[in-house]
Amino acid sequence: MTSRGELMAAEIAEQPAVLERLLADAGRIAEVAEAIRRRSPRFVLLAARGTSDHAALYAKYLIETVLKRPAGLASPSTLTVYGSRPDFRDVLWVAVSQSGGSPDLVDSTTTARECGALTVAVTNNAESPLASAAELNVDVLAGVEKAVAATKTYTAELLALYLLFGGSAAVAAGLPQAARRTLELGEDEAPVAARRYRFADRLVTTGRGLAYPTAREAALKLMETSYLGAQAFSGADLLHGPLAMIDSGVPVVAVMPPGAAGSAMAPVLERLEQGGADILRVGVDGDLQLAVDDVPDELRPVLEILPLQQLAWRLALDRGGDPDRPRGLSKVTATW
Amino acid sequence: MTSRGELMAAEIAEQPAVLERLLADAGRIAEVAEAIRRRSPRFVLLAARGTSDHAALYAKYLIETVLKRPAGLASPSTLTVYGSRPDFRDVLWVAVSQSGGSPDLVDSTTTARECGALTVAVTNNAESPLASAAELNVDVLAGVEKAVAATKTYTAELLALYLLFGGSAAVAAGLPQAARRTLELGEDEAPVAARRYRFADRLVTTGRGLAYPTAREAALKLMETSYLGAQAFSGADLLHGPLAMIDSGVPVVAVMPPGAAGSAMAPVLERLEQGGADILRVGVDGDLQLAVDDVPDELRPVLEILPLQQLAWRLALDRGGDPDRPRGLSKVTATW
Repeated sequence: MTSRGELMAAEIAEQPAVLERLLADAGRIAEVAEAIRRRSPRFVLLAARGTSDHAALYAKYLIETVLKRPAGLASPSTLTVYGSRPDFRDVLWVAVSQSGGSPDLVDSTTTARECGALTVAVTNNAESPLASAAELNVDVLAGVEKAVAATKTYTAELLALYLLFGGSAAVAAGLPQAARRTLELGEDEAPVAARRYRFADRLVTTGRGLAYPTAREAALKLMETSYLGAQAFSGADLLHGPLAMIDSGVPVVAVMPPGAAGSAMAPVLERLEQGGADILRVGVDGDLQLAVDDVPDELRPVLEILPLQQLAWRLALDRGGDPDRPRGLSKVTATW
Repeated sequence: MTSRGELMAAEIAEQPAVLERLLADAGRIAEVAEAIRRRSPRFVLLAARGTSDHAALYAKYLIETVLKRPAGLASPSTLTVYGSRPDFRDVLWVAVSQSGGSPDLVDSTTTARECGALTVAVTNNAESPLASAAELNVDVLAGVEKAVAATKTYTAELLALYLLFGGSAAVAAGLPQAARRTLELGEDEAPVAARRYRFADRLVTTGRGLAYPTAREAALKLMETSYLGAQAFSGADLLHGPLAMIDSGVPVVAVMPPGAAGSAMAPVLERLEQGGADILRVGVDGDLQLAVDDVPDELRPVLEILPLQQLAWRLALDRGGDPDRPRGLSKVTATW
């Protein structure tokens, strides 16, 4: 028996080593990328649930901006629950799953393949039913993940998807070290942030573009470990309605991406501040800082989530919970 | 000056008449559908924000199950903020917006057209910049909407998208009368539900398949009118993490679709009940009932949202707010 939070803490700390291992194996992912290129798919559909769904959302932005192909998140239920058989010729179907075991992902991937799609599984288990169901396969090599709240499999999925969709291992070489330094900064800063939210009941996370998946994943971590009512909104969607419910009693965590996406967040934060909102910033020079060194903007999401994982872990412990074993959840979630 | 909630109440009540008007004009939408068919797009991208984003999500399910084409929700920011220029040949780009005025939708639609997409605007303003930017145009004919919280434009968008993507006016003929009867049921039932949530701070909505857009839209209505921390999850995603935060203190509103999607919700509700959750059901024989008569399953979402609009309106008044003018919001939301 481990002590409260021991598993999740170990897996958070393991991430730089996982990223190194994956980079060393980048040649294998490049082969899958080449196999995809030979088939020149014209549209990409991404299928995932939970944490992996946020990695899929990250991949969607990459595919649209780097590969310049239209991409969308699939609704597995149209294939499984409604039994639809769409025309998937020229479609690349990418299923992302830590366990590779969820029946609806396996079934929808099998169906997508029957409907003509080129199918790729991105999982942490090369022996899983999902890996067998798909034509191509990427192992994210994160090692067994024991805590229910996914951490190292998320960042490994992000890096694997980056390498699969146009990124190069050479450009990503500084990532493990930047992750190590970001975790060091978080050791001091995350507990301070956790004290701020000790008695909060709700929380809003926000980000734009590539930072939006980070906001989504942070909200999920806070929900599943600390039982906070955490809601994620893209900076743009926040202004369409949800803004009304944010007053000085609802804290906001803003993930600040670099460049144009960061500038697009400025008017959002301004509106929030006008309403008296309490804002915590994640980013270079933020309340939760990142060590980005020479990491390309496209990989920033791998770093952004790290202090937020540390925050969720610390807050869960402070509130008397066990982030390794949240109530009501199990590691492999079976949905149909 | 109108009294609190007067505008929203009038627009909720107007919906059966709006649906009738739109059905009478179905021939015009059929012409747009035919123009799309002639170009035989292979992939559909839907772009929208806020309430219209939920109508877009509804259309995505329809396109996948009825037209059997792959479809995804677009991220306008990849075209606007990141300046990407993807290959959109064979893509149908559908922009849905009540006002047709949000700059990022106009810009991304213009760009999508330049990148080769066939573009269609679905708006409540045929003179809007978005309607001009798109090649084809569907007017949802809801009339001027004055309350900030959208109601009649939402159900009009749903019906317009149904008619655009495979539905027929003849099959939909019973819808206005079913809407009228559902609103009558809601007159009695929504105030009872509103009392139940008078002092709730958070709330979770859930649905699966075609009922999931209803869950999303209900959560938005409750956020923007009653300032509740309302979170929507698909039934499947709920089991992947968020389940942990739902105890007997977090009420759940479950939208129960007919058929296979409804059966898929059963295990979700079972898990929620095991955790002591308080569940309110929306559907035939639910706590908030629908009069579905001979309305096809694909149009059920038009009815499902009605008692939830009534609930949001009543709850906002009970809590001392003004659903016509939520704090911090304006009718046309400009995002870039």
